[in-house]
Amino acid sequence: MSDDATAFVPGHITGFFSAHPDDDPAIAGSRGAGVTLSHGVTVTVEPAAETVVTLDGETITIDPVSGVLQKLGVTASVDAESELPLGSGFGVSGAVALGTALAANSAFSCGHSENELVTMAHEAEVTAGTGLGDVVAQARGGMPIRVEPGGPDHGRMDGIPARPHIEYVTFGGLSTADILGGDTTTLTAAGETALDALVERPTVDRFLSESRRFARDANLLTDRVETAIEDVRDAGGNAAMAMLGETVFAVGTGLSDAGYDPERCRVHPAGATLQSD
Amino acid sequence: MSDDATAFVPGHITGFFSAHPDDDPAIAGSRGAGVTLSHGVTVTVEPAAETVVTLDGETITIDPVSGVLQKLGVTASVDAESELPLGSGFGVSGAVALGTALAANSAFSCGHSENELVTMAHEAEVTAGTGLGDVVAQARGGMPIRVEPGGPDHGRMDGIPARPHIEYVTFGGLSTADILGGDTTTLTAAGETALDALVERPTVDRFLSESRRFARDANLLTDRVETAIEDVRDAGGNAAMAMLGETVFAVGTGLSDAGYDPERCRVHPAGATLQSD
Repeated sequence: MSDDATAFVPGHITGFFSAHPDDDPAIAGSRGAGVTLSHGVTVTVEPAAETVVTLDGETITIDPVSGVLQKLGVTASVDAESELPLGSGFGVSGAVALGTALAANSAFSCGHSENELVTMAHEAEVTAGTGLGDVVAQARGGMPIRVEPGGPDHGRMDGIPARPHIEYVTFGGLSTADILGGDTTTLTAAGETALDALVERPTVDRFLSESRRFARDANLLTDRVETAIEDVRDAGGNAAMAMLGETVFAVGTGLSDAGYDPERCRVHPAGATLQSD
Repeated sequence: MSDDATAFVPGHITGFFSAHPDDDPAIAGSRGAGVTLSHGVTVTVEPAAETVVTLDGETITIDPVSGVLQKLGVTASVDAESELPLGSGFGVSGAVALGTALAANSAFSCGHSENELVTMAHEAEVTAGTGLGDVVAQARGGMPIRVEPGGPDHGRMDGIPARPHIEYVTFGGLSTADILGGDTTTLTAAGETALDALVERPTVDRFLSESRRFARDANLLTDRVETAIEDVRDAGGNAAMAMLGETVFAVGTGLSDAGYDPERCRVHPAGATLQSD
């Protein structure tokens, strides 16, 4: 048994998606597109007699993390440090789950492959109802397009070949579980339309315009989000809403130019990765 | 039409492989495993009336690069700066081709997806006979396992979840085209055996031991390479041969510990990526 191990997982903002539930959590997932962020979650795993999970120093229960440790058959101390808020559309729960899988596999010398670890985290996230597509996107990095839903053995990914700077502001959270647990027919129809349009021309501009159309058509816009997006557009920029949170993201200096005080980061080039020794 | 654009592509050392030719270059490829390097190739593309390619300041013809530009239907000035030697098993020709695809797509606003660009570079490399699996590995990053051969629409990738430091020494080149153009039956059988063993336990140790077995069974070891690998092993380290070059790579400080004066780098976490604006 080795010492502790640490993994970094980028945050992930989904711009639009369609939900594709399935009894098998490795097949269930979402289609859609998003952007991974240089801001993310650093997860350190150390073997321990009993599992304790902390997020930014506070003890917390994150169901997908429990699910991953159970699949690996280990108990551990899991310490997550996040640059991003939980429950606001940044994929933090998926990030902690995937970081736990990568770091625990290393700390316990489990000998799994990357696809196996991504599958475990994806299944745990789907089973917990906290997300459908963040984990596979975070494993990939860049600006991922989920062409077909599901874990690495079932889904199919592509990407937008661009690496713009990203700004974001968060006004509050939205419950992924509530929205995914309700009627997703309208949302899924809007997501499929957006994906068709993006695949036809996979550029940053198209991604943002389809994300805006999706938020409107799926009735997910809140007043504060709508105002911020309009302010950015009025200032000549390009912004959209993060699924699922009261969060607005913009490329370049879109939010700053509109007078907001946003966080700033880059598109993350890599996917989730163990830290070098 | 935009300005110039720049992409970085990691070097890629293949440890073992099996060759899977096909009349369709998108289906042709190799199965096997390797390691992508933080040392790589930076490619800048600028629209130009006539195509001129330079590598480290010298004008050069690289067939896969011509192939990529032809597929994109553009003429351009392509300037590649490489930290790695050409023809020594680091996937430099694949790196220049893939970097050209990414940077040209951006410079000319072609609007292709990442998979489409990887496919173009993979096809151009296969058609030129300069490689079978470097491009898809370089697009992925990390320690890629090519589970099924071919471009992104046909192949399947996995990875070893580890990010060790890497050292390497190069004694000279071997011709990929000569070896791939000859009888690859023995080589392919050895590669398949190695892949089965790695997939069963995808760890760094297993990757290196199977790479050594492959080089021996495929009769590719040269005296200098064999001696260096033995020296590293005698000093308690772990090393193997790069396919295809007279190059030895080791994890951690394996070559330094054995008295060599190697280049040092890390496993590259990301795949090939456009530089941020």
